[in-house]
Amino acid sequence: MNSARITLVTLGVADVARSVAFYAALGWKKSSDSVERTAFMIGEGVVLALWNRDDMIADGGEGELASGSGSMALAVNFDGPEAVDAFYGRAVEAGADPVKPPSKVFWGGYSGNFRDLDGHLWEVAHNPFWRLDEAGRVDLAEAS
Amino acid sequence: MNSARITLVTLGVADVARSVAFYAALGWKKSSDSVERTAFMIGEGVVLALWNRDDMIADGGEGELASGSGSMALAVNFDGPEAVDAFYGRAVEAGADPVKPPSKVFWGGYSGNFRDLDGHLWEVAHNPFWRLDEAGRVDLAEAS
Repeated sequence: MNSARITLVTLGVADVARSVAFYAALGWKKSSDSVERTAFMIGEGVVLALWNRDDMIADGGEGELASGSGSMALAVNFDGPEAVDAFYGRAVEAGADPVKPPSKVFWGGYSGNFRDLDGHLWEVAHNPFWRLDEAGRVDLAEAS
Repeated sequence: MNSARITLVTLGVADVARSVAFYAALGWKKSSDSVERTAFMIGEGVVLALWNRDDMIADGGEGELASGSGSMALAVNFDGPEAVDAFYGRAVEAGADPVKPPSKVFWGGYSGNFRDLDGHLWEVAHNPFWRLDEAGRVDLAEAS
């Protein structure tokens, strides 16, 4: 088993039910492994955990956590600009803050940024230089 | 293609080369698709992008980004406590801040938290109630 993995991304959220509805609108399915204060959302590959932020702070042992996602962002890549626009539109319709609507960007792709209901930053992108496999995973070459 | 995916997690970092060394110590491989100010690190499933934080701020169009990872955390799950200890130990040896060394936790598992060189929060966990597939992905049941 490769240890270089991310199995789960946890978002601290103010209202778990509200965030479940938001991510369900974007295609995630709620797992039956969910509990009252933490919903585990099933997507491709990585589990998205929506955790009550107060509990996340209490568990961490550091006394506080800043809101939002600091200098961290999640991204979903698509195989064309139309799919980027569609996903971005669904997010905004579900209540996301449209930080930067999709447009052509300097590196040759097409991307936009939004923040979810708790300020977590997402990028929605099409990179014409990258290949996505059937499951939608980015297929990158290892450096020699 | 399932749109409910995370294809990439981006970490804004102060020194890309330093962070490449840190994540390489944990098993990630640098992709040849990397560029000077952004390294794309290959692990299982999700690409880990290490992006110069100043560039990330400039690209986002919001003027500033808080440091660290706010109320967001990455997690890697293993199939036993020994593997948790081993990964945690490698991270600390590579320079991580040992926020909460692995221990038995209230939900019945075994986990610890560290922060990487730029304050991004990671959880290293063993959850005895979860099954990992051969690729190390969490296999959760969909809610009915």
